Amino acid sequence: MDQPVPSSAYPVSARNKVKRLHERGFYDRETIWKILDAAMLCHVSYVIDGQPFCTPTIHWREGDWLYWHGSSASRMLRQLKAGAPVCLTVSHLDGLVLSRCGFNHSANHRSAMCFGIAGIVDDPGQKSRAFDALIERFYPGRPAMMRANTVQEEKATMVIGMQIEEASAKVRAKGAGDNDEDLETPLWAGVIPVETVLRSPEISPQVPAGTAVPPHVRLYGEGRRLDDALLEAQALYEASAK
Amino acid sequence: MDQPVPSSAYPVSARNKVKRLHERGFYDRETIWKILDAAMLCHVSYVIDGQPFCTPTIHWREGDWLYWHGSSASRMLRQLKAGAPVCLTVSHLDGLVLSRCGFNHSANHRSAMCFGIAGIVDDPGQKSRAFDALIERFYPGRPAMMRANTVQEEKATMVIGMQIEEASAKVRAKGAGDNDEDLETPLWAGVIPVETVLRSPEISPQVPAGTAVPPHVRLYGEGRRLDDALLEAQALYEASAK
Repeated sequence: MDQPVPSSAYPVSARNKVKRLHERGFYDRETIWKILDAAMLCHVSYVIDGQPFCTPTIHWREGDWLYWHGSSASRMLRQLKAGAPVCLTVSHLDGLVLSRCGFNHSANHRSAMCFGIAGIVDDPGQKSRAFDALIERFYPGRPAMMRANTVQEEKATMVIGMQIEEASAKVRAKGAGDNDEDLETPLWAGVIPVETVLRSPEISPQVPAGTAVPPHVRLYGEGRRLDDALLEAQALYEASAK
Repeated sequence: MDQPVPSSAYPVSARNKVKRLHERGFYDRETIWKILDAAMLCHVSYVIDGQPFCTPTIHWREGDWLYWHGSSASRMLRQLKAGAPVCLTVSHLDGLVLSRCGFNHSANHRSAMCFGIAGIVDDPGQKSRAFDALIERFYPGRPAMMRANTVQEEKATMVIGMQIEEASAKVRAKGAGDNDEDLETPLWAGVIPVETVLRSPEISPQVPAGTAVPPHVRLYGEGRRLDDALLEAQALYEASAK
């Protein structure tokens, strides 16, 4: 993997500059990549004839490149075929923040917005490798345990790639921020933390008896935080790709 | 509250028609509202000079109207002031779905995409009521326990409203979908459920000793699913608004 130095920052322009509460803004790859890699779900914004669309999908990252996929019939992917400006955003909700006045209510969160030009990965070899990368990134070691995709399966699905041109992150991770004049108000204030966690894996009744639980399933162990598991999977993926 | 019959459906056009795996698509208000109301976080897509932006924010709903807010300095809100086409999407990740071949991997999810023209709520009375609604919807009874917002606070924040013109939902809630020819493959397949849950509330050290825990904090009890708590809060909010 040819990756830039993780501590280097993306360029800042009017497009990605954090305007609101700019002290919560970050532009360095380390912060942004960690937010991206801790999530499976992203939201992709694109424009068709002036109409914005916001489509949820699964993304994965290799260095400065983001990838996602979808049916060859989908509205989003037909639009992106020509190469189109996209904003891909990942957000984590980490806590509800209740303060003594309405204005100081907030939410703890981590979010990353990434800008670039999205295009189709249409070289058949590159596309096959991308499908394997998608599975390998989330479930390290699993592609080697499966049959290859059929030609028909790969035709039915498109892969989109986008080099991140600019990006920014916003992070809030602290308690209630009350004004001095509100501190005597006898009203509960504080943070109610929010976590996205994994529950006990439910094996398909169609799996042959005696089939082992592979390490990439144990990685998503019951009660574990999803973001921690996804970061571990990404680290394994990057180590195996070296 | 003047609400349409919950079972009635939004109109379907090329914009909101679910094209990919259309058997997972829904257009009825009951399904779409439940997905919206079960989340605090949404993603709003809008366009500035052909460039799409995808901004995470907190939304709330009153009948067919969606609301969100932000700093008067924010890029999004300055753009929307004139009234602009928007797509607001809410997504819940409910499970990782592992199948015997790469193509049949998936994710259980609930998502809703809503289309409309967003505009600023600039009547001062309406705006004040919207700020109260924002707090009341998430924390029923809390606005009555707080001081009123100052004029300065309300000036620093904009409220955006959008009537839902069209919307669609997509839901996948089932196990691995393996092809018949893959059923003998001795590879673990199934679902790893994902839940977003609440952790123990952390009171601010600045709150006076002896301050009670109000019912709207107990509603977000430790270990409870966030979506369940948000649906209960919305039901309380709608009941109190009647």
